Amino acid sequence: MERIEHHASFGGRQEVWKHTSSALGGETRFGIYLPEAALRGERCPVLYWLSGLTCTEQNFITKAGAQEHAARHGFIVVAPDTSPRGDAVANDAAYDLGQGAGFYLDATQAPWAPHFRMQDYVARELPALVEQHFPATDARGIFGHSMGGHGALVTALRHPGRYRSVSAFSPIVAPSQVPWGQKAFTAYLGDNRDAWAAWDAVELVKTAKERLTLLVDQGEADEFLATQLRPELLAAACEATGHPLTLRRHAGYDHSYYFIATFLADHFAHHAKALVGSEKARS
Amino acid sequence: MERIEHHASFGGRQEVWKHTSSALGGETRFGIYLPEAALRGERCPVLYWLSGLTCTEQNFITKAGAQEHAARHGFIVVAPDTSPRGDAVANDAAYDLGQGAGFYLDATQAPWAPHFRMQDYVARELPALVEQHFPATDARGIFGHSMGGHGALVTALRHPGRYRSVSAFSPIVAPSQVPWGQKAFTAYLGDNRDAWAAWDAVELVKTAKERLTLLVDQGEADEFLATQLRPELLAAACEATGHPLTLRRHAGYDHSYYFIATFLADHFAHHAKALVGSEKARS
Repeated sequence: MERIEHHASFGGRQEVWKHTSSALGGETRFGIYLPEAALRGERCPVLYWLSGLTCTEQNFITKAGAQEHAARHGFIVVAPDTSPRGDAVANDAAYDLGQGAGFYLDATQAPWAPHFRMQDYVARELPALVEQHFPATDARGIFGHSMGGHGALVTALRHPGRYRSVSAFSPIVAPSQVPWGQKAFTAYLGDNRDAWAAWDAVELVKTAKERLTLLVDQGEADEFLATQLRPELLAAACEATGHPLTLRRHAGYDHSYYFIATFLADHFAHHAKALVGSEKARS
Repeated sequence: MERIEHHASFGGRQEVWKHTSSALGGETRFGIYLPEAALRGERCPVLYWLSGLTCTEQNFITKAGAQEHAARHGFIVVAPDTSPRGDAVANDAAYDLGQGAGFYLDATQAPWAPHFRMQDYVARELPALVEQHFPATDARGIFGHSMGGHGALVTALRHPGRYRSVSAFSPIVAPSQVPWGQKAFTAYLGDNRDAWAAWDAVELVKTAKERLTLLVDQGEADEFLATQLRPELLAAACEATGHPLTLRRHAGYDHSYYFIATFLADHFAHHAKALVGSEKARS
């Protein structure tokens, strides 16, 4: 583990670390915001942010304005990269496949399988690392944007008990039914659609063993709304199965970080309701 | 004038426009945030932000978190580029001269003189354009960072009565006495140092006809503090002449947007004291 960036921010510190990941079979990076309490050694809840297509660990930490909210709530916020990286890792010229487009799953198909294991990294290796090296409690929340909104919903739904709260901005809720997801799942998981359901929030909601409320914000002027995001599919699945969903549609808002920044305070408040007071050993 | 970006943000709208500037002799861009009141046609005060070396109109609007504050106070915020641009404009391979490094002055020397007229653009052409095309009052404030902090201080000091408030993050307060400024002033203004004083905040404070309080925030872990910024020179000049200065030094903070974002709310509050209630015709 090597710290490669650190910046004082809202009384705490925004850092970027690189390390060799066993899940990804190579070096990766993550951003971590440590609020003032964490810098004093006090253990704090942790929010995991998953970014969208083309992003690195930098987008969220530089553009969302998250540090202000993390400082106010006393949350550690961790933002990993969106895929494995490097010359030894398979890639594709398209922006929506390969490096920068890991889709937070564990690939089974060549040439992706050896490195594209973002689910194993995000759900297992990264929290273990964070809870070992930083003053973190085991109270975890997870959220993300677009491909990372898909990642947040799927990761929480696949691991009942591991997260206390989940939310998403403009998520790909049904990757099996939209072009981005169909392309990625065919490449990473193969043609057999039976394997896709385990990575599709709309499918996972149907059999969920845990019923965490899903907070989802969606801009009505989002250029990907009708073709790739389709939140109505999640609303229908939640309605059918009684899964609690707060879906908010915002007139005029697009797919950008301007949208995320506008409603990010509400997401922190949503996670705070579940995380604050519930952590194990706040000293 | 052509609008090339627009994003809903905190109830208002972040836009980017391009237009042909007479001052710069070519096309330029600026960001403008319009709070909800402005979208309804209500006239609002305007804050002008000047960015630092290497920046474009994008850096502040994507990284500072300014829209939240602008929305809360009901301010229009305008962020121009840092220099003229394009193949027809002189340039230098260094990051601190030429395109991206206009220093907010009007150059007198070849090859810079015909296009490098950022002071004329920022202090005259841009406010006239904004006040003509957007629902702006003539209540103006100006602020900036690093080279743009220099720009904000110098622009306000050169134009008594034109701005009601001024502030700066990590400004180059005495360009005549530091390497960045000496290199740029030699190129843009020539070897005769008598011409430099009119573009140097520490020199201008000595004879200022207007005594607006200067709010200056400076990080103590700023890598450029001792060599390029030297706020103690501004403190001494203000002390000697009785110019009101609020200089705050912040332990641990560096030169980045993480620093700016942390203290930006205080700068909006500083400008609000001067701007709110003082505009001409709020309908």
